[in-house]
Formats: sequence, C-alpha cells, structure tokens
Amino acid sequence: MSPTDLYPTRRFEEPRLIYRTEDPAVWGRPADGPLSQAHLDGHQADGFTTVDQLLSPAELAAAQNEVAQLLHDPALAGDERVVRERTTDEVRSVFDVHRISPFFAAMIRDDRIAGVARQILGSDVYVHQSRINYKPGFGGAPFEWHSDFETWHAEDGMPRMRAVSLSLAMTENYHFNGSLMIMPGSHRTFVSCVGETPADNHRSSLVRQEAGTPDHASLRLLADKHGIRQFTGNAGSAVWFDSNCMHGSNGNITPFPRSNLFIVFNSVENALTDPFAAEKPRPEYLGSRDWHVLN
Amino acid sequence: MSPTDLYPTRRFEEPRLIYRTEDPAVWGRPADGPLSQAHLDGHQADGFTTVDQLLSPAELAAAQNEVAQLLHDPALAGDERVVRERTTDEVRSVFDVHRISPFFAAMIRDDRIAGVARQILGSDVYVHQSRINYKPGFGGAPFEWHSDFETWHAEDGMPRMRAVSLSLAMTENYHFNGSLMIMPGSHRTFVSCVGETPADNHRSSLVRQEAGTPDHASLRLLADKHGIRQFTGNAGSAVWFDSNCMHGSNGNITPFPRSNLFIVFNSVENALTDPFAAEKPRPEYLGSRDWHVLN
Repeated sequence: MSPTDLYPTRRFEEPRLIYRTEDPAVWGRPADGPLSQAHLDGHQADGFTTVDQLLSPAELAAAQNEVAQLLHDPALAGDERVVRERTTDEVRSVFDVHRISPFFAAMIRDDRIAGVARQILGSDVYVHQSRINYKPGFGGAPFEWHSDFETWHAEDGMPRMRAVSLSLAMTENYHFNGSLMIMPGSHRTFVSCVGETPADNHRSSLVRQEAGTPDHASLRLLADKHGIRQFTGNAGSAVWFDSNCMHGSNGNITPFPRSNLFIVFNSVENALTDPFAAEKPRPEYLGSRDWHVLN
Repeated sequence: MSPTDLYPTRRFEEPRLIYRTEDPAVWGRPADGPLSQAHLDGHQADGFTTVDQLLSPAELAAAQNEVAQLLHDPALAGDERVVRERTTDEVRSVFDVHRISPFFAAMIRDDRIAGVARQILGSDVYVHQSRINYKPGFGGAPFEWHSDFETWHAEDGMPRMRAVSLSLAMTENYHFNGSLMIMPGSHRTFVSCVGETPADNHRSSLVRQEAGTPDHASLRLLADKHGIRQFTGNAGSAVWFDSNCMHGSNGNITPFPRSNLFIVFNSVENALTDPFAAEKPRPEYLGSRDWHVLN
C-alpha cells in the first residue's frame, strides 16, 4: 500500500500551492560530512549549495574526455538512454552514466560527491537517476521551469522530498549559454500541477515537458517572491540542489555549448513506491528501483 | 546608378569575411556633442557605448506609459507595423513609433538622443527605422545572431556603414530574460551571407530571420575572437551600437518580459539607394526613404 500522499499532483482541476512542512532540505549535521554548518544552513534556506571547484584540473580533464566518448559512443546508437534534440538530432542527454561508465561510477563514490549527498540527506543514499546534459550551441532548446520532485513523485513513486541533485559543469557556464536558473527558496513550496499523465509520458517529456508543467500564475508568484538566481562558473564548478527547487534554463543561440553531469541521490529511507499519478513507473534509467546503498 | 558595393552579400556561393577599412564607427569629435573622447574611443573600438541612465525617472515613467498604450492600441489592430509572435499571437514589435507617437517623436529629438547620434555619425541624421520590441515572459523567442547593416544594405539599399542604433530599456534587463548580446569589436568585420533574398522576405524575417543569416563558422570565428558581452541594466538604461555589430538575444522562459525602444539613426550623407541584393526596397516603416533632417 502506498503511504499518505503529502504532495498530490495532476489530480485537481486547478493548480494548488502546497507548503512543505514535513521534509527538511537538510537531514544531516556538520559532523556527518564535508559541509559546514553555514553551508547546511544556506542549503536549508535557499535549497542549493554552490561549489567553486569540485574537481581538480586533472580530474576535470579526465571527466571531459569521458563525456566526449559517451556522446559519440557508437555502442549507444539507438539506445533509449540517449535523447536527441527534436530539430537537429544532436544528443541532448545521455542517461544512466553511473552504470554505463565505470569512470563515473567511481567518481560519484568520492567523499566530495557521495559524502555530501549522505550528509545532506542524513542517511545512506543510492542513485535515482544520472545523466549527461548537452546543450549544443546555435539553438540548444530551453528546459522550461519545473520541480524535479513533481515528476519523480507523480511518475516514479518517490514518496518524500529527501533527494538531492548534483549538477557538475563540464563546460564553462556563462550567463548567455543556457545555464541553470533556480528560484532560491522555492523548494519550500510544492506546485501541484493540473493534467493527467499520458501513457509513456517520458518519451516526449524529456524533449519537451508537457504534463507536470507548473502553471504561469504559480511561477509568477514564486518568481516575484523569490527572484531568480542564475549559476555561472568554470568547468568543474558545481551546484547541489534540492529535489523540489523550481528551476529551468533558457535556450542557447551562442556558439558555446553547455554540458553538465547530473546525478540524483535519493535517501535509502525514501525508496520508491507505486507512482502517485501514473499508471506504471518510468523505465529504470529514469527512476531507478535498485536502491542498493552506494558504497 | 548605385555606388560601388563595398559590402557584397547574398551573392556568392560561400560566406566571406570582408574587413571594414573605409567606414569608421565614429565620425564626429568630442566638441560635436555630449560624448567624451573616451566614450568615442570606446565606441570606435568596441562598436557600442552604454548609458547607465538615459532618462530621468519621470521621463521613464511617461515613456513606459506610452509603450503600454501602443502595445494595446486598438487603432493599430491589423496594422502591418505590428508584428506578433508566431505561436502566441502576442505583440513582438511595433514599428514606426517615431511617426505613430508624438511623445516618442519629441523624445528622440532630445540632445541626449539625436545629439549623440549626430556626434557619432558626424553629420545631420534622420530616422531609418524605429520600433518597440516586446519579448514576453514564458517563452519569448530568441533573435538569432545578425548584423543589422547586412539587411539594411541588401534589402534597403543603405550604401555605407554610417548608421547607429539606440536600444533604450523599458523594463529591467536581466541576464536571464533575453537581454541584448553583442560581440565587441565584431563591427569591424562584415559577414557576407549566402542565399538570395526571397520576394517580400521581411514578412517572415521579422518573426524568424532566414535569408541574411550569418553562417555558423563565421559566428564561431567572431565569438572566439571577440567574446560575447551581454547587457543588463535598469529600465532607462541604454546601449548605442554600430550598424554592423554582430548581435542577438536568447529566448526568455522567465516570467519577466523584456521591452525596449529601438531607434536607428542614419547619416543624411548615407541616404538609401536601390537595394544591393533585393528586387525592391522594403516598406517605408522598415527602411525609411524620408531623409529629412531630424531637427
């Protein structure tokens, strides 16, 4: 039986704002890992934590090399874990990189990554989803505003807000090449979206989100209240952000592509149930049901 | 008979880079107007000049009020000078505001506007084109990279690079709501574009530019050489930029619309001839053939 649904979505005729009272953004303490009390307080308040340089130059070069290989790996041609742009057929995302790539499987187990995830979530963790995002230059498409948790809850059956994502820059993030935007503090409000989930929604939603899209009035309210923070930084910089942050990114007409590694850690105490608003769970590479502890 | 074509475009089978040697960006001296030698030197080198606050708060409020009236003026319904977004039917541009609006007709004659244009161009000036641009929130479309001069030369018959544009912000320009980007120094290189001009090209090109679009290799070269400068600032701030600056703007998924007033001043010594790469000139509201001196 599914647990109580604290975050009902895709169920009502009108959007609703649901205020997050049960689930903190930070579950651990300073003694539990690399982050200081000030970092943890900032994460609790804003829903994100930035890291100027998460990787050393040598580690970064190795990671960029691995990304280049994955983006052009002929063994992945036709693989459903590779998502392409609608208009140009360029690769937009490669999923499941923690399973496809031994390099990334090792990297994410580092204390600077898995250790921080354990600290923020206050428990052992596993990987709910991993991917490389690649936004080409000359017209990479936007990612519209959304809460990842809304999708994971509705379509994957993630019961509570006890997951955290790492976005690790593989290229320089400028203001003008489609870098990540977050509304700081928006993670404390859940936007219940309207519209039922179509069957196999993920086949189109990874290219362009339709169901689970927050309404404009809610977005305007959150943007007026919280403002918008845009993240720039060198390759190797990173942002940790809460599962319910309202975030998105603009398109990119510049010649400079933008690529990042994106890893979602979920608490093992927050393992998936049946989806809360979909017929059946999404495929394993989108919402993993293998919650073996990441060691 | 048309003068020698220093900037051939839409004529060759491959793109060409043509280096600007005849036409300076700055034709006047400090004694000719409000800008200092340092401002003029910067304009000559970079192709643009920024103004933190061009309008007083009261002038700005009056201008914003005038924009709001023009965007919703029922008398302009169906007017070809009003261009709408392809997908949402929202107004994207209103042209010819210096003729439609007595308010703006008076405002642009101010020494802070017409005086600067005369100084930069070293002569009397007239208005080649004027418009309000309105980029709505929640999906305003990008303007792809282009040189305005390329279009004015090919389709309007502007012989030389002796025109300057003013972009005056009517709303706050953030990094994230589709603000203007320029490649500093790009005005010194003319990108000769491929492809013939279709008849009545302006009917589609104002919504999405096709002919006269610079090729990706040239854009990459210019971006690598010059970088990209993005302009942010309060409502009332402004950018003067040369007719041949390579510029564009990203789309805007945020709730915050972006609106600006755009006025193109041409030197009376640079009056239009026959188009250099089109059958007939564009309509008067796009490239004016009324070069009475602006007094």
